[in-house]
Amino acid sequence: MSRFWSPLVHRLTPYVPGEQPKIHNIIKLNTNESPYGPSPKALEAMRAASDDSLRLYPDPESLALREAIARREGLTPAHVFAGNGSDEVLAHAFQAFFNHGDPVLFPDITYSFYPVYCGLYGLPFETVALDAGMNLPLSGFDRPNSGIVVANPNAPTGIALSRADIEKLVMAHPDRVVLIDEAYVDFGAETAVPLVKKYPNLLVVQTFSKSRALAGLRVGFALGDPALIEGLNRVKDSFNSYPLDRLAQAGALAAYEDEDWLRQSVNKVIATRTTLATSLAELGFEVLRSSANFVYARHPDRDAATLAATLRERAIIVRHLKGPRTSPWLRVTIGTDAQCSALTEALREILRLNA
Amino acid sequence: MSRFWSPLVHRLTPYVPGEQPKIHNIIKLNTNESPYGPSPKALEAMRAASDDSLRLYPDPESLALREAIARREGLTPAHVFAGNGSDEVLAHAFQAFFNHGDPVLFPDITYSFYPVYCGLYGLPFETVALDAGMNLPLSGFDRPNSGIVVANPNAPTGIALSRADIEKLVMAHPDRVVLIDEAYVDFGAETAVPLVKKYPNLLVVQTFSKSRALAGLRVGFALGDPALIEGLNRVKDSFNSYPLDRLAQAGALAAYEDEDWLRQSVNKVIATRTTLATSLAELGFEVLRSSANFVYARHPDRDAATLAATLRERAIIVRHLKGPRTSPWLRVTIGTDAQCSALTEALREILRLNA
Repeated sequence: MSRFWSPLVHRLTPYVPGEQPKIHNIIKLNTNESPYGPSPKALEAMRAASDDSLRLYPDPESLALREAIARREGLTPAHVFAGNGSDEVLAHAFQAFFNHGDPVLFPDITYSFYPVYCGLYGLPFETVALDAGMNLPLSGFDRPNSGIVVANPNAPTGIALSRADIEKLVMAHPDRVVLIDEAYVDFGAETAVPLVKKYPNLLVVQTFSKSRALAGLRVGFALGDPALIEGLNRVKDSFNSYPLDRLAQAGALAAYEDEDWLRQSVNKVIATRTTLATSLAELGFEVLRSSANFVYARHPDRDAATLAATLRERAIIVRHLKGPRTSPWLRVTIGTDAQCSALTEALREILRLNA
Repeated sequence: MSRFWSPLVHRLTPYVPGEQPKIHNIIKLNTNESPYGPSPKALEAMRAASDDSLRLYPDPESLALREAIARREGLTPAHVFAGNGSDEVLAHAFQAFFNHGDPVLFPDITYSFYPVYCGLYGLPFETVALDAGMNLPLSGFDRPNSGIVVANPNAPTGIALSRADIEKLVMAHPDRVVLIDEAYVDFGAETAVPLVKKYPNLLVVQTFSKSRALAGLRVGFALGDPALIEGLNRVKDSFNSYPLDRLAQAGALAAYEDEDWLRQSVNKVIATRTTLATSLAELGFEVLRSSANFVYARHPDRDAATLAATLRERAIIVRHLKGPRTSPWLRVTIGTDAQCSALTEALREILRLNA
């Protein structure tokens, strides 16, 4: 607390990111990073961009990257916004679109940064409760709102809505922006991007951090009607003209163009996810059907926080989120086959030892 | 305009950055970039960091970089905040510290992003007029305020206040944050950093974009009392946990440690500035005494906008800022000796042709 702080700062409840341990040889399954590296072409592009031209400001509009994304999606650069990680893109979107008096709506169990953005921009919000099976009842959004945010697939559950359901939601709220956060979409959910041209109120946010294995580079983007993108640009240009550095623009562009690498990594993750889900079920866990690069699992008679702590003693980190509905669950990032086997073996032993 | 925009977005007047032309072989003296590249050690560090570890999130706290800065300045990491360019750091500071009802104060001629931040965060502001010689009268700040912002040296004038004057300002407003924006300080002004330990209301912001020739990397930082840094962190962690990517953290750290390179580049720029100022004076320009990597100059009987446009036709870009007090002036970044000679020659010809 400080007398120098704006009143807002006293009220903020900042987001707490997953641990980034500085320990080596740990099996890190806590922040949904890819176990495989980024495209070698992206690494090469970043090395090549590490030159004297760094003395110059980057392109404030990230045009080459936005053009590549637009081309692939059959859109124009005016449909694409790029930012310093999808967290920044989301923050700008909350400020740009969600202040119309009514609450912002999002599920009660979802990415825990959403309520933090509401706090930062003074936006009221209400949550829509997932049902007992952790599915999202669309009818829950049938109330006055300033905007709707749905992570698809949802985190930490991993459960996806169909594109048809997303379309219903977008159609049901034509006067409000419906933001679909597709951080994990490449791992098995249907993207809403084909709907962007049809609905002026749909904003889709994606990231390079997950399927493209560039969490360390901080690049995210949004796709939407040009009027929405202009709104984001007005906020961005009132905050930081140059959100993406030269290396990030070069690396993201090369990563985006290497679709083979993306497909390979994603397929390996999906295969490992199937194996891990089966193994966890055999150990007695209930495992939700995941379309993401993690699984959400709970054991009927073991305390999840204790399990997470015991795994940590064995140098395996998974994510446990406090809260009445999330505390029975563990969110486990899909690592390599070897990492997931090690996790399964450790859990088998822990469950036996304390049987 | 869009019905989806928050009311704020309609009111915003975004910052307009200097042109980043996509033309080659242009003499670019418009955005105060270094004519010399960054430290080769920084380039090497970024190439080395372009590896598979980019799949992992960066350190959200940029601790290694903050430790290096703290060590050099005789402070602790708790005195240091790092962000995605000093523009982001400034934005967070405006939101974190300047909302106490009274207006924010800054000079009428200064970095034109300051009023934009006020617009973004709904902060009233008033300006303190520079005198006829473009000097800043400290007495102008003797009025109720929510905080004070002074670029030192000032931009676009290049004129610096002494540390003693900064200290007077900080002492005169003990209940408000006094933010000193030292983007250009290395080119000849006295830094206020030695005052940080003494005054809990002083925040000093610096950047890697100018003297360290890393405008393309987007790294800025703030030094202040730990309570101020905590305020910045609360905003940052409510906006984007990971503002600095792995390459930016690695490159900035290596650049920061290469003080020889910094000193060499700065000395060359200062020497060229002296030559350029003399040449411009010989051509009849009034040139303000600059402590920055640019000079601010006006010709008694030539229209500055026309001069800038004519230079552009000759592939030389300088910055001309509209506005009643700035329109007679040109801001010229200090380039290499060859670039500045080319500028001088071009001006000599233009002045003769239209004599």
